[in-house]
Amino acid sequence: MQHPIAILDSGVGGITVAKEIIRQLPQEKIVYFGDSARSPYGPRKPEEIVRFTMQIVRYLLRFQPKLLVIACNTATAVALDQVRASVSIPVVGVICPGARAAVKKTKSGVIGVIGTECTVRSQAYDQALKDLSPKLEVLSQPCPRFVPLVEQGDFHSPQAKQAVWESLAPLKHHAHGKPMDCLILGCTHYPFLQDAISSVMGSGVELINSAEETARETSAVLHHQGQLAKTRERPVHHFLCSGNPATFQGIAREWLNEDIQVTPVVWQGPKYV
Amino acid sequence: MQHPIAILDSGVGGITVAKEIIRQLPQEKIVYFGDSARSPYGPRKPEEIVRFTMQIVRYLLRFQPKLLVIACNTATAVALDQVRASVSIPVVGVICPGARAAVKKTKSGVIGVIGTECTVRSQAYDQALKDLSPKLEVLSQPCPRFVPLVEQGDFHSPQAKQAVWESLAPLKHHAHGKPMDCLILGCTHYPFLQDAISSVMGSGVELINSAEETARETSAVLHHQGQLAKTRERPVHHFLCSGNPATFQGIAREWLNEDIQVTPVVWQGPKYV
Repeated sequence: MQHPIAILDSGVGGITVAKEIIRQLPQEKIVYFGDSARSPYGPRKPEEIVRFTMQIVRYLLRFQPKLLVIACNTATAVALDQVRASVSIPVVGVICPGARAAVKKTKSGVIGVIGTECTVRSQAYDQALKDLSPKLEVLSQPCPRFVPLVEQGDFHSPQAKQAVWESLAPLKHHAHGKPMDCLILGCTHYPFLQDAISSVMGSGVELINSAEETARETSAVLHHQGQLAKTRERPVHHFLCSGNPATFQGIAREWLNEDIQVTPVVWQGPKYV
Repeated sequence: MQHPIAILDSGVGGITVAKEIIRQLPQEKIVYFGDSARSPYGPRKPEEIVRFTMQIVRYLLRFQPKLLVIACNTATAVALDQVRASVSIPVVGVICPGARAAVKKTKSGVIGVIGTECTVRSQAYDQALKDLSPKLEVLSQPCPRFVPLVEQGDFHSPQAKQAVWESLAPLKHHAHGKPMDCLILGCTHYPFLQDAISSVMGSGVELINSAEETARETSAVLHHQGQLAKTRERPVHHFLCSGNPATFQGIAREWLNEDIQVTPVVWQGPKYV
């Protein structure tokens, strides 16, 4: 039996991580849980996000995963430590891999971060960046309009572009001594809007896609644990979703360019609240 | 007491890794051993490289390192498994980080690798790349003239450029269906020649600097072990060299842009052979 990599997100955002894991580790089997019924997590209280995340982790453990990816910046920001303490497998969050990539890329030492309100408020990126390199300067901007757009599959409309433009304006026009040269997409939903974000920020700002970086860190952790899949067979992935499976499937198929099936999961009873 | 990160190389090549570790993890203390007296390792027999590497590892363990970086592709290719089996701390080699970065970057699926004769003959990169993603195509080219140039501090002369041009010609003119879009600098000495290599290969080929990638993997491994340095004091690094300390110091100072001191180490007795 091949133990899968379990991935969870508040909705379709983690699909950007799943896609990169499938690309960078094509022999690994994935089981994905998107909590679209309760998306977005960004405006919720930390205690609630921790409760939802732990519930999904317990659900995913049934699949006997060898590694768990919290493919949601909001959940990583507030629940990573608790999840790590409660399971015996390695847990990879999306914040440290993005922080590490930004530290590697930046020349100016000024790094931008965009994320949900909860992620920005938690200062998890500031902490992760400064733990690595105390002299970095970090400029953060919450972008609460992005996740709802992405969950609706709306990445390219004039309204989406307008929302991106307006949300990034404070960051772009930030008066500053040294120029920001990296912008961390601190939410796994944001790569869906990457083209629009890139055209607003211009070519002087490199976008750090935490999905790519998380896939790479997953590869490194599995390697150092001696747990990379050895099979040469093409794995069959498993997608689960608490919300509308058709919407999820449409977005996931477009992004993955693959014909996937989605299993609906209905939260029941008192655990739902 | 702050436990250092120990780094070893056949000579000055690992300085490219040390520089990136200092940049990406400025709070970490480094102890570096360059075996310049016995450089280059590339043309040597694997048994001899394993013996030399194990000797340096034993020497470095006196400094009670928390992690060991084999910052030499040749030594990683032939001695990594044996080093890992003989020490109780994490050991990071330079091959897998570079392979992982290339897998992340490539779009065409065709990856070039340049390294010493021993590294190329070992097929360690082919193996690491195909373990991650079996369908990749790998084109390898040994460049035995590069390490002696770098050990002499000769990076910019017309002779150096000529050697780079001639060494890369077979790779550049390789008739191929799909174009190579990444070239792994599969030797830690090669970033010293990066400008020349880049101008020969052209803008369509992204160079993967295994030094940068190894520093990043070191950061990830320390993070997952809970062993990143917490101090905010500037650490004092320690450089040791078995060859001419003045030559080593000149090259290291130029590359690190820092005034370092080098302690000479003389191999004595039967262990030297």
